[in-house]
Amino acid sequence: MDNDSSARIVGALRDWIAAAPAGARLPSTRALVATHAASPITVQKALRVLTAQGLIESRPGVGTFVRAIRVARPLEFGWQTAALGSPPNRVPVSAAAMRDAPQGVMALHSGYPNRELLPERLVRSALTRAARSDVAVSRPPVAGIPELQAWFAAELADAVPAGATPPTASDVLVLPGSQSGLSSIFRALVGAGHALVMESPTYWGAITAAEQAGVRVIPVPSGAAGPDPDDVARAFEETGARAFYAQPNYANPTGAQWSRDTTERILSVVRASGAFLIEDDWAHDFGITSTSAPVAGMDDAGHVVYIRSLTKSVSPAIQIAAIIARGPARQRILADRVASSMYVSGILQAAALDIVTQPAWRAHLRGVRSQLRSRRDLLVDSLSEHAPRAHLTAIPAGGLNLWVRLPDDTDLPALVRSCAEENLFVGPGSEWFPAEPPGPFLRLNYSGPNPGAFPEAARILGRVLDRSL
Amino acid sequence: MDNDSSARIVGALRDWIAAAPAGARLPSTRALVATHAASPITVQKALRVLTAQGLIESRPGVGTFVRAIRVARPLEFGWQTAALGSPPNRVPVSAAAMRDAPQGVMALHSGYPNRELLPERLVRSALTRAARSDVAVSRPPVAGIPELQAWFAAELADAVPAGATPPTASDVLVLPGSQSGLSSIFRALVGAGHALVMESPTYWGAITAAEQAGVRVIPVPSGAAGPDPDDVARAFEETGARAFYAQPNYANPTGAQWSRDTTERILSVVRASGAFLIEDDWAHDFGITSTSAPVAGMDDAGHVVYIRSLTKSVSPAIQIAAIIARGPARQRILADRVASSMYVSGILQAAALDIVTQPAWRAHLRGVRSQLRSRRDLLVDSLSEHAPRAHLTAIPAGGLNLWVRLPDDTDLPALVRSCAEENLFVGPGSEWFPAEPPGPFLRLNYSGPNPGAFPEAARILGRVLDRSL
Repeated sequence: MDNDSSARIVGALRDWIAAAPAGARLPSTRALVATHAASPITVQKALRVLTAQGLIESRPGVGTFVRAIRVARPLEFGWQTAALGSPPNRVPVSAAAMRDAPQGVMALHSGYPNRELLPERLVRSALTRAARSDVAVSRPPVAGIPELQAWFAAELADAVPAGATPPTASDVLVLPGSQSGLSSIFRALVGAGHALVMESPTYWGAITAAEQAGVRVIPVPSGAAGPDPDDVARAFEETGARAFYAQPNYANPTGAQWSRDTTERILSVVRASGAFLIEDDWAHDFGITSTSAPVAGMDDAGHVVYIRSLTKSVSPAIQIAAIIARGPARQRILADRVASSMYVSGILQAAALDIVTQPAWRAHLRGVRSQLRSRRDLLVDSLSEHAPRAHLTAIPAGGLNLWVRLPDDTDLPALVRSCAEENLFVGPGSEWFPAEPPGPFLRLNYSGPNPGAFPEAARILGRVLDRSL
Repeated sequence: MDNDSSARIVGALRDWIAAAPAGARLPSTRALVATHAASPITVQKALRVLTAQGLIESRPGVGTFVRAIRVARPLEFGWQTAALGSPPNRVPVSAAAMRDAPQGVMALHSGYPNRELLPERLVRSALTRAARSDVAVSRPPVAGIPELQAWFAAELADAVPAGATPPTASDVLVLPGSQSGLSSIFRALVGAGHALVMESPTYWGAITAAEQAGVRVIPVPSGAAGPDPDDVARAFEETGARAFYAQPNYANPTGAQWSRDTTERILSVVRASGAFLIEDDWAHDFGITSTSAPVAGMDDAGHVVYIRSLTKSVSPAIQIAAIIARGPARQRILADRVASSMYVSGILQAAALDIVTQPAWRAHLRGVRSQLRSRRDLLVDSLSEHAPRAHLTAIPAGGLNLWVRLPDDTDLPALVRSCAEENLFVGPGSEWFPAEPPGPFLRLNYSGPNPGAFPEAARILGRVLDRSL
């Protein structure tokens, strides 16, 4: 037996193993004997050493293999801290509205309607049809399937008064959900370092997209009646902002729907400022006692860039939204979309078009309207009975949320934690403010699972609030 | 007849119409008579005026309606030019590789494999199964469906040599296609204004994503053997770059596959620079005479951020890709993903997982390998026979493209146009260069429709080249 030979074979085989995938079969003992001009005993010894080092394993009668199950060791990524520097912004990776709720939790925190509010049968049959058609194996045009573009354009055209020019299919860009559209609009129309006016509070996803785009957020206060147009005017004057992001119908979280007067005055401000109104019509399908009246219908000079998603009303699996924009702005946004995703899956586009053009879709939306009304009213009544210290800012005419003001001295994080301990998830209002919140708020979503538990949820909230007195 | 009354009614109805959707029915003549305390003749006159103005139309026996067909007028978007300023970069909205080819065109320009190279039967049955399951109406976790994360991790683990720690499911982020992943990686790991080293030439989509992210691109020359590690080292030293984006296997467009020596030397450079190698394994499923050997398998210290897409090998409709990254880098990228798209459609994730875990998937890939080999060889032979002045830089061991050097004095745009006039679409090499091209090149994709036309395509290219002598 030759110790040096054995060490030499160990070294050579270590190099071989380092280059081999896990599970690779080592040369046979006979081959190793020949290659290394060593005795079988020397080769066997080398293999034993490698086995003891955890690098190989023998399967008797089969052969010797590079070990597939690796020894886990703690990995050292400290160097990345230097490479990455400080994170660019304050936004946490997961917002309350995205948190998964365990079975049995009363979930008033989520932003997504529960399954019973979705057109499940339509979704399944549309996807099945799409799976059989050409869209399953082909690439759609960059801006979307023309028929789906036309559907989005026609829907908005319904809101266009006589004398104004309605949008056409070629003004529409189909998107894989509205979140990526917000990022694109902010990058393309505002740009890093430039000012973007936003309502405060407003949709947390828009705040996140704005921070990702690196724009400078200029908050204007907004409440149950929407923003004050004079505040918006002042924000434009003082900052030279290029755009105002807003939700004129059933704003998330406040539920505000702009009056006709507010709409006209804000449109005047936007026109006078040579700026864009980025209208996020997120709850277009969720009117309760009114219907969504897109401001974009009242503009044909390219001032309103409209975005509207089907994801919440159709299915989270059908991530389809659209931007309607006219003039060079559309071109600018399209260039950003190509850089972001090239195109949108034809399967999802075809399924979305199939669903919204079925007669059953209209009937489904009527059913949703009535269910949302019952759910909203039950939660409103439950709060007023069991949690009188939670002050409802308004009863929204549409949307999915109540916006609740809590007593000034409420410790919001502690309250959210206490509720969670009693199996009630609520959305801390702070996540909807791009600036410091003027007080403690909660967002309570009434489109989640099990509305029958709303009274119990209100009782828990009431108890937790009383305890914090 | 009272002219003043008529004008008053016209004024009132214009306001009414301005607020009404197209197609809305006007109050009856009788109702207008009552409302305005005017005679039927006066009301009729007002309606005629409004009809003449194109605002309403009568349908006899039915009623009078706000006009649905609007008079198109040229719209004025000049104000947007001031609001938007100059475009931020030079990239055209549509690259040659994204152009749709009319029927009958010989399409050597596209980046997407033709339908006959896709596992069509698997795609259709997987989508049909997914349509019946819970994923059709539910929202998956932000980072992806755990089983799909695990599949991507296991695939890369196959390339990990003994002694190194393989990636796990929790290192994986599922993406809606690789393009959005590139944007996220560049924003999250490099950041606007910072330096990113890239091969030149390289994938045009990565160049576009880099420009969108606002990073400063540092090109290093690359050819049939990949980049020279000394050039990469110099680029890091001179610029303090944080990352090197590269395609070590079958680079697009050159087809280069890094040798073991190049791989090790570049990994050393990256480690010594405290930097990332962003490895785009775009052609993982398209090996021909070799297989893709991910560099990420040789790194467990978080230096290699790996991205790999199923879109080209599965179907353009199944836009599913994955990033595998370890340490804080993964967290940084995840935060950007949430801001970009919240989550990835569960339908597409479930279908992708279904397809790649079928035994028929492996068989399909073997078939693709053999088809690509025939296609590549046919195009190579055709060029050498019919277009000898088109110099093939190398015969690639995998991927979908030939990279062809043309004579120095070739007028590339004119050549591309001349080919198109003869129904041959080719990719002008200039689109793959982040800096000035060192000469005229063409990218010829051999995965498009109708490979039987390759000899004819080569004849056309040869003729056009001869003509330009």
